[in-house]
Amino acid sequence: MISAAGGSMGPDSLEHGGRLAEARRHFVGAPEPFIDLSTGINPVSWPLPPWPPEAFTRLPEPGEEEALREAAAAAYGVPATGCVAAAPGTQLLIQLLPRLFPLPQLRILGPTYAEHAACWRAAGTVVREVAELEALDGPGGALLCNPNNPDGRRHAPAVLLALADRLAARGGFLVVDEAFADLEPEALGCASALPHPGLILLRSFGKSYGLAGLRLGFALAAPARVAAIRAVLGPWAVSGPALAAGRAALADAPWRRAAAARLEEEVVRLDARLAAAGLRVCGGTRLFRLAEGEAAFWHGRLGRAGILTRRFADMPHWLRFGLPGDPAAWARLEQALDLRRDAGTV
Amino acid sequence: MISAAGGSMGPDSLEHGGRLAEARRHFVGAPEPFIDLSTGINPVSWPLPPWPPEAFTRLPEPGEEEALREAAAAAYGVPATGCVAAAPGTQLLIQLLPRLFPLPQLRILGPTYAEHAACWRAAGTVVREVAELEALDGPGGALLCNPNNPDGRRHAPAVLLALADRLAARGGFLVVDEAFADLEPEALGCASALPHPGLILLRSFGKSYGLAGLRLGFALAAPARVAAIRAVLGPWAVSGPALAAGRAALADAPWRRAAAARLEEEVVRLDARLAAAGLRVCGGTRLFRLAEGEAAFWHGRLGRAGILTRRFADMPHWLRFGLPGDPAAWARLEQALDLRRDAGTV
Repeated sequence: MISAAGGSMGPDSLEHGGRLAEARRHFVGAPEPFIDLSTGINPVSWPLPPWPPEAFTRLPEPGEEEALREAAAAAYGVPATGCVAAAPGTQLLIQLLPRLFPLPQLRILGPTYAEHAACWRAAGTVVREVAELEALDGPGGALLCNPNNPDGRRHAPAVLLALADRLAARGGFLVVDEAFADLEPEALGCASALPHPGLILLRSFGKSYGLAGLRLGFALAAPARVAAIRAVLGPWAVSGPALAAGRAALADAPWRRAAAARLEEEVVRLDARLAAAGLRVCGGTRLFRLAEGEAAFWHGRLGRAGILTRRFADMPHWLRFGLPGDPAAWARLEQALDLRRDAGTV
Repeated sequence: MISAAGGSMGPDSLEHGGRLAEARRHFVGAPEPFIDLSTGINPVSWPLPPWPPEAFTRLPEPGEEEALREAAAAAYGVPATGCVAAAPGTQLLIQLLPRLFPLPQLRILGPTYAEHAACWRAAGTVVREVAELEALDGPGGALLCNPNNPDGRRHAPAVLLALADRLAARGGFLVVDEAFADLEPEALGCASALPHPGLILLRSFGKSYGLAGLRLGFALAAPARVAAIRAVLGPWAVSGPALAAGRAALADAPWRRAAAARLEEEVVRLDARLAAAGLRVCGGTRLFRLAEGEAAFWHGRLGRAGILTRRFADMPHWLRFGLPGDPAAWARLEQALDLRRDAGTV
């Protein structure tokens, strides 16, 4: 079974969605191509332009990272480029935060993306998972994902900023992982409140733009924290292709609006199909839906149909669905979700 | 002036070769395209195949990084994949080593690539630059580049392994940056001695394969150290394109042999042109040559001809040359190096 939870550490110990090779071994004989709905990555990516060869061959110039940071500041609504650090994927930032800004204790609003707790624990922080936003207040630090993965829970920026104020007053800070905020209907980002002494935001480029293999993510924070992050990453942490595509895609607001509108339609369509299959949609974002019900049955049935979904070790009734990327994938998903076909009634 | 030395820290404070935008501002009106000979990056890159779109869109699978590490182990002569950590560029490993394996003191064989001293100092280590290999022995750690950048000094692996033995006996270790070892005529790598408790090796993929923008580098060390490096990098630190190209290029021994042979011819040609210009070639590798002489004059003359070379703040008579990548670049370099043309005698 594919698991999201777990307190163990290290690069190989936490299991993740997106493991197609493993799924192929598990569901031997399933039809190909396998459809990966186990992640929350936009299935229709920002259209990559032809690469200039220099993107791969040359060391990136300092000005290229600066231009990327400017594009990110504009896209995320950050008041100054000095509040933006670019990294080869948000995951590396999640790994580094506990080492750069050590805390004796941290509360995490859970259940959520398990890497946060694992990385803070690996750095020696006492981590406590709490179920309610109010319980994030206290000494040390706090962390939440907004909107949350996997259940889509969300909180108004004003409420989070008030919490960050209280944490900062005690010398602590709030980490808000905004990995899934880009394409949501409401404005969930806290970036316009920067520079704030008690706020560290994370943004994932790969999920929203469907370019997870490119490895690009951002930390948004007060300039002193950003300088510390950039100092540990060093020059050239972001690849030439990520600099080129990131800069152009972040400046492409029309594409972002169109992607959000398309995904909203598709989410409505997916929710209807899940409901018809007897699954209760209990949350999500425009990049994934969380359903409750006969998760083991559906994970197995869909797997044998060549469709990978995501289960959760601690929540055996949960099943998370990413969005199909094209009509063929939609047709296969809808067919596999339709039990009447087996019964010969269709 | 472009400077290699300096004890300051942070991503923006050390200056590097490869800053074309800056060179264009400095040498206004120089002919284009600017020829960048300020780095030691192979000017003829490993031929990139067409990318599968999944390299950019999907999160890399765990098996892909495993396959890359296996290819690296085979190419570098490492006895086990457990001794190989892959990273988005060697620079990030240079940044992280002092944090992962802290030392009160470290001796560096200098002058050499300035980022090493800067990163160890930033982590609080007392760094002393020494001029002779024998002076690397002592308490704590030691570091050298083999072959060295910029002067090409080199040391036999047996000598370095004896030094690593002595350092390890005191609880210290030796870091050997083998960034320029891949294409050299003699076997300079220490990888076959792994696992060794007192040895950490660095290998740069981008320089040898001419793909510096891709960001890929390796640490080779005993499994416990490799596990610590991999744990801080987390999953997915290496991009999809780097995984795909790295795996294929590292397995391409015929390309590597042909590149080494081609570069050897070109190095002989470059040395002759530098000597004819009155510059004394005092060292180098197959990816760069270090010349001594009227460095300020030649840096300026070549710069105005649209050719960027590399000066060194602490060594005003030094000038480093990368290799031109094509006949047009060779012709422009040879013309600019030939003073007789100005005198009307040619």
